[in-house]
Amino acid sequence: MKPFLQVLRGEAQKVPPVWIMRQAGRYLPEYREIRAKARDFVDFCLTPDLAIEATLQPIRRYGMDAAILFADILLIPQAMGQSLAFVEGEGPKLEPIRDREGLKRLTVNGVAERLQPVMETVKGVKAALPGTVALIGFAGAPWTVATYMIEGGGGSDHALIRRMAWSDPVLFGGILDALTEATIAYLIAQIDAGAEVLQLFDTWAGSVPAPLFERAVIQPAAQIVKAIKAHAPHVPVIGFPRAAAPHLAAYAARTGVDGVGIDHMTPLSFAAGAVTPDKALQGNLDPILLLAGGETMTDEASRLVRAMTGRPYIFNLGHGVLPATPPEHVAQLLAAVRGA
Amino acid sequence: MKPFLQVLRGEAQKVPPVWIMRQAGRYLPEYREIRAKARDFVDFCLTPDLAIEATLQPIRRYGMDAAILFADILLIPQAMGQSLAFVEGEGPKLEPIRDREGLKRLTVNGVAERLQPVMETVKGVKAALPGTVALIGFAGAPWTVATYMIEGGGGSDHALIRRMAWSDPVLFGGILDALTEATIAYLIAQIDAGAEVLQLFDTWAGSVPAPLFERAVIQPAAQIVKAIKAHAPHVPVIGFPRAAAPHLAAYAARTGVDGVGIDHMTPLSFAAGAVTPDKALQGNLDPILLLAGGETMTDEASRLVRAMTGRPYIFNLGHGVLPATPPEHVAQLLAAVRGA
Repeated sequence: MKPFLQVLRGEAQKVPPVWIMRQAGRYLPEYREIRAKARDFVDFCLTPDLAIEATLQPIRRYGMDAAILFADILLIPQAMGQSLAFVEGEGPKLEPIRDREGLKRLTVNGVAERLQPVMETVKGVKAALPGTVALIGFAGAPWTVATYMIEGGGGSDHALIRRMAWSDPVLFGGILDALTEATIAYLIAQIDAGAEVLQLFDTWAGSVPAPLFERAVIQPAAQIVKAIKAHAPHVPVIGFPRAAAPHLAAYAARTGVDGVGIDHMTPLSFAAGAVTPDKALQGNLDPILLLAGGETMTDEASRLVRAMTGRPYIFNLGHGVLPATPPEHVAQLLAAVRGA
Repeated sequence: MKPFLQVLRGEAQKVPPVWIMRQAGRYLPEYREIRAKARDFVDFCLTPDLAIEATLQPIRRYGMDAAILFADILLIPQAMGQSLAFVEGEGPKLEPIRDREGLKRLTVNGVAERLQPVMETVKGVKAALPGTVALIGFAGAPWTVATYMIEGGGGSDHALIRRMAWSDPVLFGGILDALTEATIAYLIAQIDAGAEVLQLFDTWAGSVPAPLFERAVIQPAAQIVKAIKAHAPHVPVIGFPRAAAPHLAAYAARTGVDGVGIDHMTPLSFAAGAVTPDKALQGNLDPILLLAGGETMTDEASRLVRAMTGRPYIFNLGHGVLPATPPEHVAQLLAAVRGA
């Protein structure tokens, strides 16, 4: 069995498997070269030849232990009927959904079919991957995707979704439920196309008001994991509730995930205390360390690996690799992790 | 003794004392009226007549249990010699400090003297306050103030300070140490002018990479508290390490603070488990609830008060009151807390 999958069955590895979030991305010159071939970012994600190539680039260059499907968490709202555009230098823009009319315009049925190009990418990557490398499919978690859908873009304080979540729990719950259902269909289609592991990115879990965390984050994740396990009991799920340390214990215990991603603000020792040792931990090197590279980075990576000895652990960053990262620092990092 | 001060000695009150962060601010029409009289925001902070009036407005309107000095956390870098401007709609802009030359240009000596107008404000407020209302002085915590000094403004990912903290701990430590020293002098001057309680705002504590938290947040806070206690053993200190839940236990145990502010993303039950019950908790209502007001807000406020029964607790928000808050909702909130 692939080491990456063994870890997610709770079996600690002597050398932890490694991948890094956004490993296929702008810091790689070969990525920038193929990115220029697409009309826009959504087009890039939905052109299987390009997305397959982007997914495979970091595997070829670094020999990562896992490839992650190249796609975007906002393909789902688009497939549900919400307009989406990526504005250069400004991030994603969506026609915001803020009332029942907006919710009614969303379609759950047929989401996976409309995202068929993503499934072609999964199939193409699977066919090309070396036998030891695992293929990770993914989706944004409902809270995080809903922040974009309701705010209409990135934003930072997520005031509109917080206000809706408190003031109109029925509308908010309706959006979450529609997203949960669409996400399940999308992830199951990824499994059927060849994904061996799934990751649920809850990038904005840290902005959920504490009393709403159960409804906004834990419930949808639990529903998604349950549906995945019913369809494919052997496919592990990694949950990444970013910046939500006080909820880690509940998240790990109640969602049914097999692994938990840990951001770089949360001490790995805290995470190890909050998550039972049958579940894998993944993370949590500060991505900023890769800008300078060198011993500060490699010492810290080695420290994390040593601290996780005997625990099922996947080496990764605490957040995505930064676009300004020199590619050779990623190679240094992998050497440190594997030689640690 | 004022109920606010009793709580900070570890004595639970039947009705928790209340104040709200940014209670003197833009949501109040009377604030906007006097704000218009000053040339710019820094001028406003440094004009005692205006700052006294701003501090007192919410006391008059709502009968808060504590007044907080009207000032800004960036007055310290300015008093240390760093240029500061508030650009309308863009937030603060500072000439960034990123090397040893920049650090050398900072002056610690004389900071409190250069901030004499702030002390005039403290004196003026103290003379005007009703006898039951406590006067809170404050400063930004060194990490948070340093983010502005190094980034040159607000920003969101704090990449430059994180990079410096990892790569050049000597320079980073030098900036923290200078700030810590200046902050001690500034806070002691506030005590001497009449401040009865101090709050240390570490708004950006949540962006500190986990392995650096001890150096960036806990050490400076501990030094500041120690110096304050040496000067004025009776003056309690509230620390507010925002969005840093996994470090709350260590922060409460090792900094020597008498109370800990809790943001709205952290369950109050988690905070109550992390902080020993001899210390007060303060917070943590989501400020977004004040936009809509009504029962959702008052029910949640009552729930917090009930959950804290028997614990020393100060009612407050989890972050500053939003400028769009209707002032009457603040009155509703206080009625709910006091009648809960």
